[in-house]
Amino acid sequence: MSNIYLAVIGVGGVGTAFLNQLARLPNAPKLVLLARSSQTLQSPTPAYAPAIPAADWKTAVETPSLTKSGALSVDEIASYLSSAPGRSILVDNTSDLTLASSYPVFLRKGISIVTPNKKGFSSDIALWKDIFAAAAEGKALVYHESTVGAGLPVISTIRDLVNTGDEVTRIEGVFSGTLSFLFNTFAPASGSSDAKWSEVVAKAKELGYTEPDPRDDLNGMDVARKLTILARIAGLEVESPASFPVESLIPKELESLPATAEGAAQFMAGLPEFDDQMSAIREGAEKQGKVVRYVGSVDVGKKTVRVGLQFFEKDSSIAGLKGSDNIISFHTKRYGSQPLVVQGSGAGGEVTAMGVTADLIKAVERLQ
Amino acid sequence: MSNIYLAVIGVGGVGTAFLNQLARLPNAPKLVLLARSSQTLQSPTPAYAPAIPAADWKTAVETPSLTKSGALSVDEIASYLSSAPGRSILVDNTSDLTLASSYPVFLRKGISIVTPNKKGFSSDIALWKDIFAAAAEGKALVYHESTVGAGLPVISTIRDLVNTGDEVTRIEGVFSGTLSFLFNTFAPASGSSDAKWSEVVAKAKELGYTEPDPRDDLNGMDVARKLTILARIAGLEVESPASFPVESLIPKELESLPATAEGAAQFMAGLPEFDDQMSAIREGAEKQGKVVRYVGSVDVGKKTVRVGLQFFEKDSSIAGLKGSDNIISFHTKRYGSQPLVVQGSGAGGEVTAMGVTADLIKAVERLQ
Repeated sequence: MSNIYLAVIGVGGVGTAFLNQLARLPNAPKLVLLARSSQTLQSPTPAYAPAIPAADWKTAVETPSLTKSGALSVDEIASYLSSAPGRSILVDNTSDLTLASSYPVFLRKGISIVTPNKKGFSSDIALWKDIFAAAAEGKALVYHESTVGAGLPVISTIRDLVNTGDEVTRIEGVFSGTLSFLFNTFAPASGSSDAKWSEVVAKAKELGYTEPDPRDDLNGMDVARKLTILARIAGLEVESPASFPVESLIPKELESLPATAEGAAQFMAGLPEFDDQMSAIREGAEKQGKVVRYVGSVDVGKKTVRVGLQFFEKDSSIAGLKGSDNIISFHTKRYGSQPLVVQGSGAGGEVTAMGVTADLIKAVERLQ
Repeated sequence: MSNIYLAVIGVGGVGTAFLNQLARLPNAPKLVLLARSSQTLQSPTPAYAPAIPAADWKTAVETPSLTKSGALSVDEIASYLSSAPGRSILVDNTSDLTLASSYPVFLRKGISIVTPNKKGFSSDIALWKDIFAAAAEGKALVYHESTVGAGLPVISTIRDLVNTGDEVTRIEGVFSGTLSFLFNTFAPASGSSDAKWSEVVAKAKELGYTEPDPRDDLNGMDVARKLTILARIAGLEVESPASFPVESLIPKELESLPATAEGAAQFMAGLPEFDDQMSAIREGAEKQGKVVRYVGSVDVGKKTVRVGLQFFEKDSSIAGLKGSDNIISFHTKRYGSQPLVVQGSGAGGEVTAMGVTADLIKAVERLQ
């Protein structure tokens, strides 16, 4: 085991997959804190031992030698980690904005952050700046590969391009596995489909491809957050994901439904009324020999970011995507006319956790 | 400037582009040794200062405060670097097997290696094993992203997959920018071509897309070396690039021509006699509605590696490649039915140097 101390917050789909991967890692850091909503498990001070067994985290709560408590405050967790007898890393496997807003507190105390949580990097630009300023002050590291494209090498690739002095001129792609699946099914590039939009959405929901409330995919905000992150790394000072045009696929007439499970049910019930609108868009594309896709793009020169529907030639790589794949194209000065392209599954617990674990390995390599 | 000491060997296309990128790097390591075939420039001992200015390396030989000499031996360079007052890195921008065979000497002395030189990683398996054993012994680092796909994130991606516990089951792709260009031109996926093979090769040579001697591309050895590297990282003990089937595009009748410039000219003069053979292959693919491409593949389960011609559906991503792009698909247990795909330019000084520079940044981050 390395002499690095690890705290993990969140044991949802990604968190559980991450703990499984952590358990199989050679030279893994010592897991000394594991927190879920209202429960915290800790290795007792001052020894910070024994470590929490990542393989048996579910039953570890029965281990008498570990300290159990309710939810700890950010300051309590930060102070516990910064007193550990070695460098420490916090893995945030939640999608919580409040926790993400506290990254600077951890970083200034020298605690590194590894996370798939988009919120810290895609909210107000002030938080983005504070995170990286705090990391520099605390000589701590920040890794967030899985905030875009899950485990696909997206963040590392754009950082390598920028760090080696290349100029990213344009980024374009399909950034949502859910919206990829919906449009690949609704308007396939080969053959044709007369499927109704509401039926495709209902089927995707049934298969578990959408969020529990499909409006969380259809409003485009998840894609807008990812574009915010990429645009910022490419050098644009994007104020927030609300500061550029995002086309929502939630019909105006259904926007006022409450953000509850009942509201989601009412939304699904009301969606068929708008099938003709979506079919008309599909036919408009078809008349040009194209298909419609939901994409995001950043034009660095023009300083514009946009997220929404666009038509693509049927033999283009965006049109030809399969299943729920993401595709991300980086156009740069060095790469010239042909972009650098990364493609593959951009969602799911295992591949998202893989990005987190790969980041953790890199952080450990640099800290030890 | 960081407290890391840097030696660079080789100032060809990649070497020159690398030195330009190095000159623009914030927190760059100190360049204390720069060697080309018969000339070496060094910062004088014991101060290891002044550093060689990367931006003006061509005129630095006139600087009186720098030490000039002829070619140094491996032991001389290793001993110079290991006596520096900090950690050191050797960047090998040559394609020299002799230098690559000495990596273990450097690594055992704690000198890290960053290189686009394929030879060390694709020759005898004994050298491969010795390199990584030496790195572990010397606590030194080895980075070689640009040995496959130039600056494309190929080595880093497969290492992340393997290190996080995924199982790579199959790797497939187009690994040569030259052969990509030749076949994309000779047998395009959209439309059709009646171009003669020998004319396509001649044109590519004229455009500088081939090696000075096109036989160095057509013999498939460059691709075989890349596949050897990937297969080894995926877990196969590939003895050497000669230990699996590699289809050479050099006609048997022309194999005995000498490996000289004159031999290359005789080869180009003799190639048109074999145009009918290549046209017949193109027509064979066409009859199945497919196109022919030169690909490499690794099947980890079956423990097989192969390099050669294969037919692909016209709407496949391999058939649809443009220009001299590479494409590499990783099929893994976690990624399931859809592979993780990386695509883009896999050749050229700037993008190859980018992979080297990105590796150097990572090595510096870990050593400082």
